[in-house]
Amino acid sequence: MAFPKAVLFDTFGTVVDWRGSLIALGEAFRPGVDWPGLADAWRAAYAPTMQAVRSGERPWARLEVLQRESLAALAPRFGLGSLSPGELDAVNGFWRRLRPWPDAVAGLTRLRQRCIVGPLSNGDTALLVSMAREAGLPWDTVLGSDVFGHFKPDPEVYLGACRLLALEPGEVMLCAAHNGDLAAAQSHGMQTAFVARPTEHGPGQTTELRADGDWTVAVCGLDELARRLA
Amino acid sequence: MAFPKAVLFDTFGTVVDWRGSLIALGEAFRPGVDWPGLADAWRAAYAPTMQAVRSGERPWARLEVLQRESLAALAPRFGLGSLSPGELDAVNGFWRRLRPWPDAVAGLTRLRQRCIVGPLSNGDTALLVSMAREAGLPWDTVLGSDVFGHFKPDPEVYLGACRLLALEPGEVMLCAAHNGDLAAAQSHGMQTAFVARPTEHGPGQTTELRADGDWTVAVCGLDELARRLA
Repeated sequence: MAFPKAVLFDTFGTVVDWRGSLIALGEAFRPGVDWPGLADAWRAAYAPTMQAVRSGERPWARLEVLQRESLAALAPRFGLGSLSPGELDAVNGFWRRLRPWPDAVAGLTRLRQRCIVGPLSNGDTALLVSMAREAGLPWDTVLGSDVFGHFKPDPEVYLGACRLLALEPGEVMLCAAHNGDLAAAQSHGMQTAFVARPTEHGPGQTTELRADGDWTVAVCGLDELARRLA
Repeated sequence: MAFPKAVLFDTFGTVVDWRGSLIALGEAFRPGVDWPGLADAWRAAYAPTMQAVRSGERPWARLEVLQRESLAALAPRFGLGSLSPGELDAVNGFWRRLRPWPDAVAGLTRLRQRCIVGPLSNGDTALLVSMAREAGLPWDTVLGSDVFGHFKPDPEVYLGACRLLALEPGEVMLCAAHNGDLAAAQSHGMQTAFVARPTEHGPGQTTELRADGDWTVAVCGLDELARRLA
């Protein structure tokens, strides 16, 4: 394995614990709501809303706009139908405040001593910059999906990031907790790192529990990734 | 003045001392060459090469590619005609290793506690990311001119950066040592900060010595900018 010149990271689930964070932020905002249920339903809306953009059914919209629409549609089902537009904005802003997994900041900080680190996420630049500032993620740069005008797994995202870093795909590694994301990266010649996040979807998670492809490395945390690449 | 949510910085001359750095790196590479003359001639080639792209005379090329072509053309005049392609690459790479002005890192670090900071430069993303890692520039994100496929003062650069940060132009400040750059930013509704860099072009500098527009603030360094915006 050639040491990568850049390691890029899927973000939601891979670097930050979106589900646990949404539940904690939601409980602080309004106790007694089924925040686990809302978090899961909100996340379930993620793929179809992006697919509408990817298929051309609707024009480009950045993720935060899609999330805001999904939230407005879901709110009544979870007893939040009376939230004002400003309150819905505040809840939508939870995605800017997601907490990193406990190993993430230390692992990224160590990796950054050796190579460029950045997100490669379906999040938009504004959301990801805010998240990095809140969570202390030490990115070298933040290139959101709106830089490319495409969502993963469209090739434009993977290849666009390599192009902007002026690196060959083989010089760049994608780290993700999702095998499908790694398969797309590998198909473009990138190196791949699977990180297991067995509670991303909560205690009963049944998918993405282990690497199911021939990835460059498979690890249990970003601290382990930094050690393996040292 | 509304406190800006982001302050973006012209880079060459505003944050880093390109001329002093090229001379110092050149002397270390090969003593006895007229490095001040080469630095000035190289910088003089900057505007016309970018203009060829801006006018559509040639397709998009990132700055580092343009700099490499200019260097190859200038090398014989400065006794460097025998440099190998690899040596020319190494000299071209000096632009990734430019030193910050003495006030830059402290000022940016302080400003970053209050708002987003990033470059808004004609440099490309790869060059600017390398520069930030070498110089310790604490950017929140690095969006090079290749993200927009345009060079300043094309509107796409200023407005594209605001769009990717999901901010209105009035919420974003451009800081530059060049009045023309600030005039372009102001024409799009951005806030403006002039920083005096009276030795950017060496000891005999006669241009850009003072603010010549109605800028939001005018300062003598990024530390002063951070104090003024505190």
